[in-house]
Amino acid sequence: MAGPTTYFDPTDSAGLEPPVRDLIERRARAMGSAYRLFYQDPVQLARGSGTKVYDVDGVEYLDAYNNVPSVGHAHPRVVAAIAAQAALLTTHTRYLSEPTVNYAEDLLSTLPEHIANVMFTCTGSEANDLALRIAKLATGGTGVIVTRNAYHGVTTEIAAISPSLGGVQSLADWTRVIPAPGPGIGFAEAVEAAIADLALAGIRPAALIVDTIFASDGVFADVPGLAHAAAAVHRAGGLVIADEVQPGFGRLGTGMWGFERHALRPDIVTVGKPMGNGAPIAAMLARRELVDEFNSHGRYFNTFGGSSVSIAAAQATLDVLRDENLIGNARVVGDYLVAGLTHLGRFVEVRGAGLFIGAQLENERVAVAAVNALRARRVLISAAGPANDTLKIRPPLPFSIADADRLLTELATALP
Amino acid sequence: MAGPTTYFDPTDSAGLEPPVRDLIERRARAMGSAYRLFYQDPVQLARGSGTKVYDVDGVEYLDAYNNVPSVGHAHPRVVAAIAAQAALLTTHTRYLSEPTVNYAEDLLSTLPEHIANVMFTCTGSEANDLALRIAKLATGGTGVIVTRNAYHGVTTEIAAISPSLGGVQSLADWTRVIPAPGPGIGFAEAVEAAIADLALAGIRPAALIVDTIFASDGVFADVPGLAHAAAAVHRAGGLVIADEVQPGFGRLGTGMWGFERHALRPDIVTVGKPMGNGAPIAAMLARRELVDEFNSHGRYFNTFGGSSVSIAAAQATLDVLRDENLIGNARVVGDYLVAGLTHLGRFVEVRGAGLFIGAQLENERVAVAAVNALRARRVLISAAGPANDTLKIRPPLPFSIADADRLLTELATALP
Repeated sequence: MAGPTTYFDPTDSAGLEPPVRDLIERRARAMGSAYRLFYQDPVQLARGSGTKVYDVDGVEYLDAYNNVPSVGHAHPRVVAAIAAQAALLTTHTRYLSEPTVNYAEDLLSTLPEHIANVMFTCTGSEANDLALRIAKLATGGTGVIVTRNAYHGVTTEIAAISPSLGGVQSLADWTRVIPAPGPGIGFAEAVEAAIADLALAGIRPAALIVDTIFASDGVFADVPGLAHAAAAVHRAGGLVIADEVQPGFGRLGTGMWGFERHALRPDIVTVGKPMGNGAPIAAMLARRELVDEFNSHGRYFNTFGGSSVSIAAAQATLDVLRDENLIGNARVVGDYLVAGLTHLGRFVEVRGAGLFIGAQLENERVAVAAVNALRARRVLISAAGPANDTLKIRPPLPFSIADADRLLTELATALP
Repeated sequence: MAGPTTYFDPTDSAGLEPPVRDLIERRARAMGSAYRLFYQDPVQLARGSGTKVYDVDGVEYLDAYNNVPSVGHAHPRVVAAIAAQAALLTTHTRYLSEPTVNYAEDLLSTLPEHIANVMFTCTGSEANDLALRIAKLATGGTGVIVTRNAYHGVTTEIAAISPSLGGVQSLADWTRVIPAPGPGIGFAEAVEAAIADLALAGIRPAALIVDTIFASDGVFADVPGLAHAAAAVHRAGGLVIADEVQPGFGRLGTGMWGFERHALRPDIVTVGKPMGNGAPIAAMLARRELVDEFNSHGRYFNTFGGSSVSIAAAQATLDVLRDENLIGNARVVGDYLVAGLTHLGRFVEVRGAGLFIGAQLENERVAVAAVNALRARRVLISAAGPANDTLKIRPPLPFSIADADRLLTELATALP
């Protein structure tokens, strides 16, 4: 590794307790080189509740990072739904199930009417993979346009449109990269140039796919030109895919979906991570005619996609999101946090919406130091962006004003 | 559709109760055209226990089909493990976790020593997708050899090696298809011919991938020449991937893995479906140097792969498999069932190992009639094979002699 990162560096484990070092070594031996650990002093979590997690020694941490347990760690209603359904039955979608149909209808009711069908998968990667298959079949094109540091998943197909995984050299020859949003970037012009470049190579566009909070690009909530870019893609015969795996389900504090903030009208929407508050469930949602076209070419069945326990968890999560007004909370506490971060006067820029915030520091070294110092002060966050210089703050949605104050206080001390 | 299948035909729903028909229509409207239902009279399951499932009216069915709830529907130990872990914490692999390391070591201990690393995914599709990525990087080749009616998953990459999904016309130009096993088929010769054909096209082989029970090919337990085929692939610079998603975890009644029966020495092993008894977990296991080579090219992280609740479910499932001697039961009851099926004198051939049995009838019409007649007699099975003429019998592993007798009795009446 070139310099410190927010991940554990195994060559620098001398400071750890022997039992922790032993466990890390056993882990590396069995699970191999792909697995990384957060922080130079890794955390061994044992339980969680709301916005707090506790390690095996009972030490409490404020979780300002994990977006998957979106309605709070071990939310009692989600836990009860999982336990009750697991005790009854776990099965797949080839048996008729009223709770599954109810959830499908409930989820679709949160989306524009033209998004008429849902197909359940297990992971956001699978949802995006399915979205691209559908887009390519429907358009007859293969070209895909993504942002410079995009991350959309880990299947072969999706890794080939995710420059944040292996760099641009790992992309497919039908992938075109546009700059990440930022000052002076004309998003619509960049997309138009990518369409023209595909045309020069004789490649018809299949889709523009955007994470509507541009998380791995460094968190950009407001991107002028996005709706115009979408229109250009439509004119060229391509589809627009809104990857809501990270921003979706109310995190941005205004409505359920990130694309609403940009006045986008996507043809396909993919959702995942927070959908089941940790239960593995994701989905691809699309216009009916796209789904019909796809299914006329072959069959699709995902054994675990929408299985009974995952659906029960997803329904409970959606119910809690509404009953506890967590979208409103994300807006109020998110605004408070942005103001507090800005007031600290230490950031190049503070960006974001709701409880998805990027706070940019002068460079990676400072950001990494802050992340590890915060961990030592029992607050969990991470860093993001192409230069890894941006603090990524993305807590469970019940994050309170008191939680925000604790984060701001610790951050003031942790920043060099 | 051309003629009846084992799936529900929506154009023939007149015989159903109005509330069932309404639910089916709502389902089709929301979930679209991909979703199929088993049986002309679909089953609406509400709960399960061991080898029995119960519909919403409390009617009991014998489950002779579902391989995912492998240690029995709603097994109390697995249910308790899921409920306990969900109440504590659900998180990912970037925090240190001793139960995860324990399970990784336990799983690896069931495999040959050269299979040294495990990477957790959510689904078998993701495991096979990762296996191919790794094989292609390690070999520098792209050619993949599969059997005629193979099914390995639903990602873009894996659909391109799964002729059972969309026919051979849906495959990639680097995919080569060999005949399904069967009388007169020289498996090693077919693989050698495929290698030669790849060479003619200037394509280097990356892998031979086989489901070691050849489920979608019609269930073939004994395939002469498979070990020789693997040797030919190795000589040509390719790898051998054992897809254990269906046969693995003891279903075949002799040891944990299907490849052991064929004296295969795979470079990569993929596992899934029964791994968590319904909890979404799967894995790719491989030689360490293959994993290292892959990780030197980029990063891989699967948010839900090996999350806390899935690992708890997988550990409980593995414990039950051993503590209840379910592999021994699969062998004894499987042998009894094969003898009983053969004794019925109605099958062209009865094939299989342990509790993975294919009973071939004269044609699809007879097989479909038998599957629907059995469903009416409250026994759940399905059909498989390229001609869809083979009854697929693949129950939860606690299937008892009494269960086998019930299946045989009902089958004797159900067969035309």
